[in-house]
Amino acid sequence: MPQVLLVAFSNRDDAVALAASILEQLRAKSVSAEFSLLDDEVQPNIDDRTLVVSFGGDGTFLRAARVAHTAGARVLGVELGKLGFLLNTPVADVLDEVLHALVDESFEPRLALSVRIPGLNEDAFAFNEVVVERARNGQMVRVQTFVDEDEYLLYSADGVLVATPTGSTGYNFSAGGPVIANELGVMVLTPIAPHFTIDRSVVLAGNSIVKLTAMDKSAAVLVDGRETAILSPGDSVVVRRNDTPVRVVATRNSELVNRLRKGLREGHA
Amino acid sequence: MPQVLLVAFSNRDDAVALAASILEQLRAKSVSAEFSLLDDEVQPNIDDRTLVVSFGGDGTFLRAARVAHTAGARVLGVELGKLGFLLNTPVADVLDEVLHALVDESFEPRLALSVRIPGLNEDAFAFNEVVVERARNGQMVRVQTFVDEDEYLLYSADGVLVATPTGSTGYNFSAGGPVIANELGVMVLTPIAPHFTIDRSVVLAGNSIVKLTAMDKSAAVLVDGRETAILSPGDSVVVRRNDTPVRVVATRNSELVNRLRKGLREGHA
Amino acid sequence: MPQVLLVAFSNRDDAVALAASILEQLRAKSVSAEFSLLDDEVQPNIDDRTLVVSFGGDGTFLRAARVAHTAGARVLGVELGKLGFLLNTPVADVLDEVLHALVDESFEPRLALSVRIPGLNEDAFAFNEVVVERARNGQMVRVQTFVDEDEYLLYSADGVLVATPTGSTGYNFSAGGPVIANELGVMVLTPIAPHFTIDRSVVLAGNSIVKLTAMDKSAAVLVDGRETAILSPGDSVVVRRNDTPVRVVATRNSELVNRLRKGLREGHA
Amino acid sequence: MPQVLLVAFSNRDDAVALAASILEQLRAKSVSAEFSLLDDEVQPNIDDRTLVVSFGGDGTFLRAARVAHTAGARVLGVELGKLGFLLNTPVADVLDEVLHALVDESFEPRLALSVRIPGLNEDAFAFNEVVVERARNGQMVRVQTFVDEDEYLLYSADGVLVATPTGSTGYNFSAGGPVIANELGVMVLTPIAPHFTIDRSVVLAGNSIVKLTAMDKSAAVLVDGRETAILSPGDSVVVRRNDTPVRVVATRNSELVNRLRKGLREGHA
Repeated sequence: MPQVLLVAFSNRDDAVALAASILEQLRAKSVSAEFSLLDDEVQPNIDDRTLVVSFGGDGTFLRAARVAHTAGARVLGVELGKLGFLLNTPVADVLDEVLHALVDESFEPRLALSVRIPGLNEDAFAFNEVVVERARNGQMVRVQTFVDEDEYLLYSADGVLVATPTGSTGYNFSAGGPVIANELGVMVLTPIAPHFTIDRSVVLAGNSIVKLTAMDKSAAVLVDGRETAILSPGDSVVVRRNDTPVRVVATRNSELVNRLRKGLREGHA
Repeated sequence: MPQVLLVAFSNRDDAVALAASILEQLRAKSVSAEFSLLDDEVQPNIDDRTLVVSFGGDGTFLRAARVAHTAGARVLGVELGKLGFLLNTPVADVLDEVLHALVDESFEPRLALSVRIPGLNEDAFAFNEVVVERARNGQMVRVQTFVDEDEYLLYSADGVLVATPTGSTGYNFSAGGPVIANELGVMVLTPIAPHFTIDRSVVLAGNSIVKLTAMDKSAAVLVDGRETAILSPGDSVVVRRNDTPVRVVATRNSELVNRLRKGLREGHA
Repeated sequence: MPQVLLVAFSNRDDAVALAASILEQLRAKSVSAEFSLLDDEVQPNIDDRTLVVSFGGDGTFLRAARVAHTAGARVLGVELGKLGFLLNTPVADVLDEVLHALVDESFEPRLALSVRIPGLNEDAFAFNEVVVERARNGQMVRVQTFVDEDEYLLYSADGVLVATPTGSTGYNFSAGGPVIANELGVMVLTPIAPHFTIDRSVVLAGNSIVKLTAMDKSAAVLVDGRETAILSPGDSVVVRRNDTPVRVVATRNSELVNRLRKGLREGHA
Repeated sequence: MPQVLLVAFSNRDDAVALAASILEQLRAKSVSAEFSLLDDEVQPNIDDRTLVVSFGGDGTFLRAARVAHTAGARVLGVELGKLGFLLNTPVADVLDEVLHALVDESFEPRLALSVRIPGLNEDAFAFNEVVVERARNGQMVRVQTFVDEDEYLLYSADGVLVATPTGSTGYNFSAGGPVIANELGVMVLTPIAPHFTIDRSVVLAGNSIVKLTAMDKSAAVLVDGRETAILSPGDSVVVRRNDTPVRVVATRNSELVNRLRKGLREGHA
């Protein structure tokens, strides 16, 4: 098993090049390191002592976190800017962060979700959010929500999502939801473009069991941005906390306020 | 040409039954009246002196308005509630409203939109809104907006819409946009679930020419809720005021504050 | 010490009458019970075995919770509607709830806040929220926020508030903040009418220490809706979790979804 | 009468210095020009052929617009940044803009408001907005709105405002209201931090007569940010379009999209 697994998507030349450079420098320091493309979705051969290092944007980190979570490994995100090689931190600092993580075994446990979806044998893993939304553009869906079997609110909306703290600055944010500190073991339920119904998010305990039922139209289920299933009217997904959290190695880029500042900067550039 | 054309969708039994009853009573008073299903999308044989009366919900009114607009005719909406026969006004009142509209030729001119879409020979007609949105669930689109050729704001969002005052209480409202008095000749530009960009609507003059350009991903174009085209990256739609307004016969149900009260009541039932 | 202390404000005749009726019935059952008006702000003579029962609206419950918290006692809220005697639950049920709470000693621990304010010898107690806002109408204040000494976001706004889960359906909700499940030990930071700055709430861990600094104008500090101090420019308040939670006896009215439903119903009546 | 009246507030040294420099250069070109401080609120001696030029921020422009409106004169805003001398346009350009405005008599007519307030002999003039809000911090007010004598929505909120297009990027924006193109003759009604009531703005025709009634608590009336009166419960203010618009000389800084970009830039700096 490698001590370090560097990962990137092949369509980010800058990420692949940076990973290659770090790979070389790690090996020069006798660290056993490997590089793997995330494109093919094969689970790499790692165990819980491996450090997974992702090079890229939010999508890359999400995929790397899934890979790390499957093996119980830690994940460290090296974030590259949107356009070209706009790395926030110098290359030398990246190397230092990786080396530091090899000697300091600490990590932030981050809440992930487990999603039961009709027709799937296995629960899906989500690190950002689960969305139940209109199957087709131009429609609204009605989604009845339940928390711990109690009937909650009924939304007419483009969709309803359940996000983790990590995902709170993603689609949840766009939909008007609150930002949630990384370390909290809570979930947030947020409607997307609700029509004449309450448009506030609800922050729920991490041990809540949330059921989202598509009422009278079919609805799409998206897990971390990927369409995973289509619900027939009356079908439900059940969302709960994943048994094991994602182990994130904290860096300055992963701090909440820095993620916010980056979002504001890039959003209004 | 009939003096009155009653229209409904066949899947609303209550609407069809009410229309049949009104049809009979109009004929008993020697008014030349006909009934037509909206399902088949054939333009009925009417002219600008015909009064079109729609029986149903918002979708029915939208379709009836299109039919009336094509002929330069007036349209009167008889609104039925969502579930079963929850007509707000008694049947006798409906008859009275229709008869009154035959002697009083007044109407409210309402702004409609004309949309130029790549690949279509004819501009599309919109009475509620035009939406440029993600072609697939789970994506965001970047839409650059232009007003009268000046570069305006760039949105990363589920989509961006341009709505009429009539459409302001529809999808625009769900997306957070303002309610606009029916009689105003303005448009409103509203982003849907924008990510870290300005989320406010912009109210524009009716003679503005608004261009929405899909930047780096393909995007769907929806006109009054129907998917009408797919834009390739770089493609644009151009939205402007339709040359002729829709001629709406004002009733108590069409007044803005009553539409709002109904929305609040049904939304929170 | 009484087993039960019934409290109300004197200006709610219906509340006082209901309390008197319950008082009589409790005594008939040999429960030692007393009644106290909340108007005079004298801490009643109770200890941690007393059950405090509030009759009235949100303001009454807030004051009763403060009284109970000081003594380490439990508090049960009997909620009366806004206008006249619109009690949600029948009188017999109120009696049952009180009697049940005497034998079942369980309670929900709810997070409260402790607020250090310049010029005050003692930290203030807050059960809903602390607000730092413009001292005068027609101004905006700039408030710099810090979390655990790290510089956070700077807001130009009418004000900034830190709310508890209990307070999340109050002013925080009006300001656009999320609803938070009662049992969560978290705080939420929400700007009020922010100008061109991020308008999302941030949900923070319960052990966070939040500092709010009035930048260039004086600002008012409100604790649970009462103006408690005026900050000079540069002054700060420091908000942290109170050492002891408020002990709330759970009833159907105190459940989050019922509080929401009530709010929606009364808000849109 | 001077051809040009330059105005500024005395507490902006940079504005006063710039105005003095422009004054000198205008006189060197034989333009009759004068400088006046805005501090003392005396209406300067000008007529409708005078060009008023304001040096400063939004507050300065607001005051200068009032001065110009009283005389039927045009107003041109030279906008200085928030901190120090952060003028967006070079000094030479300012001179050019002023000279150009002397030969080109065009202007943008902008809607202003006229407000009838109990106890005042004269209607107040507003160029940004009229606010009816809680008289004291920590309260909510209930404001009943009427449009053309029809009962509209009832708000429980910090306040309710009626803004002009010019004011739409001010307090209205903070409160969640839409941006409105400068040239539109409409008003916008926006609640501030409404509690469990509809939080959308309503855009109304310019000839609407809007009445705002303080229901059960006294409320403050603010006109362009100044507290102008206190309403007793039951009192109303009546807002309508001012008979004469404000005559604004258009510059690049006054264009809507540039005002937005400036707001976003300064807001997130």
